[in-house]
Amino acid sequence: MSEAAKTLEGWYSLHDFRAIDWTSWKMLSSDERQAAIHEFLSLLDKWNTTQSEKKGSHALYTVVGQKADFMLMILRPTLEEINEIENEFNKTKLAEYTVPTFSYVSIVELSNYLPSDQDPYQSPEILARLYPILPKSKHVCFYPMDKRRQGNDNWYMLPMEDRRNMMRSHGMIGRQYAGKVKQIITGSVGFDDYEWGVTLFSDDALQFKKLVYEMRFDEVSARYGEFGSFFVGNLLEEDRIAQLLHIN
Amino acid sequence: MSEAAKTLEGWYSLHDFRAIDWTSWKMLSSDERQAAIHEFLSLLDKWNTTQSEKKGSHALYTVVGQKADFMLMILRPTLEEINEIENEFNKTKLAEYTVPTFSYVSIVELSNYLPSDQDPYQSPEILARLYPILPKSKHVCFYPMDKRRQGNDNWYMLPMEDRRNMMRSHGMIGRQYAGKVKQIITGSVGFDDYEWGVTLFSDDALQFKKLVYEMRFDEVSARYGEFGSFFVGNLLEEDRIAQLLHIN
Amino acid sequence: MSEAAKTLEGWYSLHDFRAIDWTSWKMLSSDERQAAIHEFLSLLDKWNTTQSEKKGSHALYTVVGQKADFMLMILRPTLEEINEIENEFNKTKLAEYTVPTFSYVSIVELSNYLPSDQDPYQSPEILARLYPILPKSKHVCFYPMDKRRQGNDNWYMLPMEDRRNMMRSHGMIGRQYAGKVKQIITGSVGFDDYEWGVTLFSDDALQFKKLVYEMRFDEVSARYGEFGSFFVGNLLEEDRIAQLLHIN
Amino acid sequence: MSEAAKTLEGWYSLHDFRAIDWTSWKMLSSDERQAAIHEFLSLLDKWNTTQSEKKGSHALYTVVGQKADFMLMILRPTLEEINEIENEFNKTKLAEYTVPTFSYVSIVELSNYLPSDQDPYQSPEILARLYPILPKSKHVCFYPMDKRRQGNDNWYMLPMEDRRNMMRSHGMIGRQYAGKVKQIITGSVGFDDYEWGVTLFSDDALQFKKLVYEMRFDEVSARYGEFGSFFVGNLLEEDRIAQLLHIN
Amino acid sequence: MSEAAKTLEGWYSLHDFRAIDWTSWKMLSSDERQAAIHEFLSLLDKWNTTQSEKKGSHALYTVVGQKADFMLMILRPTLEEINEIENEFNKTKLAEYTVPTFSYVSIVELSNYLPSDQDPYQSPEILARLYPILPKSKHVCFYPMDKRRQGNDNWYMLPMEDRRNMMRSHGMIGRQYAGKVKQIITGSVGFDDYEWGVTLFSDDALQFKKLVYEMRFDEVSARYGEFGSFFVGNLLEEDRIAQLLHIN
Repeated sequence: MSEAAKTLEGWYSLHDFRAIDWTSWKMLSSDERQAAIHEFLSLLDKWNTTQSEKKGSHALYTVVGQKADFMLMILRPTLEEINEIENEFNKTKLAEYTVPTFSYVSIVELSNYLPSDQDPYQSPEILARLYPILPKSKHVCFYPMDKRRQGNDNWYMLPMEDRRNMMRSHGMIGRQYAGKVKQIITGSVGFDDYEWGVTLFSDDALQFKKLVYEMRFDEVSARYGEFGSFFVGNLLEEDRIAQLLHIN
Repeated sequence: MSEAAKTLEGWYSLHDFRAIDWTSWKMLSSDERQAAIHEFLSLLDKWNTTQSEKKGSHALYTVVGQKADFMLMILRPTLEEINEIENEFNKTKLAEYTVPTFSYVSIVELSNYLPSDQDPYQSPEILARLYPILPKSKHVCFYPMDKRRQGNDNWYMLPMEDRRNMMRSHGMIGRQYAGKVKQIITGSVGFDDYEWGVTLFSDDALQFKKLVYEMRFDEVSARYGEFGSFFVGNLLEEDRIAQLLHIN
Repeated sequence: MSEAAKTLEGWYSLHDFRAIDWTSWKMLSSDERQAAIHEFLSLLDKWNTTQSEKKGSHALYTVVGQKADFMLMILRPTLEEINEIENEFNKTKLAEYTVPTFSYVSIVELSNYLPSDQDPYQSPEILARLYPILPKSKHVCFYPMDKRRQGNDNWYMLPMEDRRNMMRSHGMIGRQYAGKVKQIITGSVGFDDYEWGVTLFSDDALQFKKLVYEMRFDEVSARYGEFGSFFVGNLLEEDRIAQLLHIN
Repeated sequence: MSEAAKTLEGWYSLHDFRAIDWTSWKMLSSDERQAAIHEFLSLLDKWNTTQSEKKGSHALYTVVGQKADFMLMILRPTLEEINEIENEFNKTKLAEYTVPTFSYVSIVELSNYLPSDQDPYQSPEILARLYPILPKSKHVCFYPMDKRRQGNDNWYMLPMEDRRNMMRSHGMIGRQYAGKVKQIITGSVGFDDYEWGVTLFSDDALQFKKLVYEMRFDEVSARYGEFGSFFVGNLLEEDRIAQLLHIN
Repeated sequence: MSEAAKTLEGWYSLHDFRAIDWTSWKMLSSDERQAAIHEFLSLLDKWNTTQSEKKGSHALYTVVGQKADFMLMILRPTLEEINEIENEFNKTKLAEYTVPTFSYVSIVELSNYLPSDQDPYQSPEILARLYPILPKSKHVCFYPMDKRRQGNDNWYMLPMEDRRNMMRSHGMIGRQYAGKVKQIITGSVGFDDYEWGVTLFSDDALQFKKLVYEMRFDEVSARYGEFGSFFVGNLLEEDRIAQLLHIN
């Protein structure tokens, strides 16, 4: 048996993708729509408070194309809190005018394929990565992925040393995008259908393509990466929600 | 032809996943909702009686993410009883406000890849595993799986001895999680689309990830495991049902 | 080119799986439900007459899990009769409260991989297998399947002799279940998405699992079997239909 | 690069599969249903005129099983005409009571893998095959297919000579069914999800199974064929449409 | 690690496929339909202005078969503008009578597998290809595709030189169709589920089939191409929109 990589885990995560049922939404009176928006903003307020207390974080992005109209990403210390937020949102008026289109359950993860000559939980940098405050970048990209287990391309049968080397090379591509793309890896083995979720944040959406494409030529992706659906979107700031949902 | 593993079977099992149709549920009057909750609690009462008589068992968990809002797991001696419970639930008021999203039909199974120098049905420990009372752990994880039959990675073409050795090694990983994770294997060959269902219970959801990830590096999973969807959730105790379904 | 196996064909077959739309069904008045049930029973009466005249056969089973609530299996001499029955059912009141979830079109088939030193159509035993009256066993199991054509595991590239030997070994497993499981093979090449449908009948549902699992270790399944969805259910006798559909 | 096979093309083709929404259809008054049937028959009349002028052809078949209730196959000289017919049908009253379940866009195709010592467009026989009047056979079978490109089984990497030899052997099986099965091949590379559509017509549905099964043992199918869904049905003559749609 | 191909990017792109809900559309009064058409034409007017200012481009085509009734292709400098257009369309009256069936998010891409002895951004020809005004060809063909990463057929593990040679040979096939087919490649790595979208424009739909089929015999497609769904359609000029949507 190959040695399993050690992982560190932080906050639980839910990516919740919703399409807006515009036809029904338009049937509401302007007042009803205002009330629904107001209720949703109150929910965001509550989450902002949680975030300012460093007890969790969240992000709200529109999604381009028909896969969804917006995505909520929620980080919390427990699965119970994640579940409560989900139910709380489902009970809002706005949720009645949305259709769930995809979701992803995972947990913020760091993998120590890199040498570990220190206690990671003593490192403020590592703690900041395990319990991250999500950035307000202009764009987001999300996709789930697996490591392949197929014929001669079986990641889980490789010796630790080979995996470590490939991950190091992989990480070096990522590092070239430092300052341009922020990456949050969440682990989902046992939680959802793929093994990891990758959430990228950037002020320049083109960097998502550049980064993912360059990595695809790296052996760890070329031979061992299996990718699910890709979602891309734009920051939805709270003061733009009313505009997005505005009906003439 | 390879020798088939001998298996022992206990209670039949149904995993029944449902999403709540919140929009319709909110349209009910508070009294109607109370009546529906009351009726569902009565059903649970009846199942609790069955369980206390050791004629079956059941578990109720919420599910995180859009795959479902809750999961019922039902164990009974016959497929007819499983079917009756399913129909009885379908006729409740609450069921009208749920949407079936996934189900799994199987039977509690023990496999004697391990040496068998005793009559397993004489063992109280084995009987307790075949007819288990499901725990009230805080979290549940469910996934169906197959053994792979693909090119050189064909489980069913391996000699019994090789399979036995791999399963023993696999079992040893599981044993490291004793006390942390309780695992119930249900066989579904001939009953549903995968060959087995795996239901894990734990008070720490992170242990699901640790266990499944560690096992994935084991040859029996790395080369021979094919996994379906993963579902993860939180215990839904009866006194919290009203709260989950409460609408302001 | 490999020699194609010769096949004998009997009655055409339709497996028709339906879910009950309980919410709408409950909205009917008790009288309307009675009328719908009465109409459906009349249809079954007509089919019973056909069956007693040996001009066809049918079976009605509930299905466990969310894949369907019941399955009709219909055997008739022509595709036109199959189609008429389908349309006749679709026009009933009951059908309005069902949702089609899966169907399978095929024809009862015997394959003479076994030596053929006689004219099969002279054999009453063979005729009884081509034009079978479906049993009233307590349980049914249905699944469609293909023979694999993949890399080195390509059934259709094997010499006839190899296929014949493997099928003979396969048949010997089946024979061990004689008296416990009755199997009806229907061919669906050119008719539906898989190459065969397998319908198993037994008074002990566990025998489905035992049989299918044991066969899976046989080379013909291990290397060459590709399986679709599995459906399992319980006999729905006519005098229990009213009970199944009863609403308090 | 392998040499591409030369192809000849005739009329564009649309296979349009529809399920009938019986519940809504039954809600209409008998007069409304008559009007809808009458309108549909007028459309067929118009298409009959086109066909008698050899400016196109069409076929109408019921479909057995839940995949559809009927299939329209339409041949026309241009994609615009195909599109207009589609829209014209969509605007009828009958179409409101149907649900689209599958469609296929292609073009009648002949492939000259066979020696070409003549100008095919001078041959009346070839012109009749490129611009065929669809037969009124009792049964139809439709399926889309690809040539495989997988590992060592890659049709498109084979030398022309090998492909030509395999296609010739394949054609000889087809020729044994001359008079029993009429086959129309339509090409769909660039038009729809598979590379070809195969439409078979026969007065004996069993011949579809015999033909497709026998061909499956031929190397070109065994190693290189990838098949989509199979649809089978019965001729729906115009004077039987009212009966199919009749509600008591 | 293999060297990644360098790419040039132009405008962001959205392909938005919609089916018309004819049943609901027909329920509107003629005046309401006129208003909805008028509103949609105003939107197109606005986009025409953008196009005449070279700040973007768009195309409107009907789609043949059930995959959609029409396709909008939108090119704009930013993802935010793409998103705004999507939302603006979603808020129109016409959109209420359409059902989203597929969409694709990408960015106009040129790949410099060809020798690069000049600064591409200095070339007016290259700029015209990165920021193209979409042609008014009679027909469109769209499909997404990946380069394969499977066993020995792994594009991303090939040396740059091999990829460059194969792409050059591929391009030479394309060049034979110059004047007959205009091709726009959009990259979607990180944006959508495939790696590229291919949009072909031609006045002769048959050329799509000829081109794609000929290329399929080229090694880069035969061994390394993985194709998604194909969509084909006809130009929908603004003065024909009213006719398409006209109800008697």
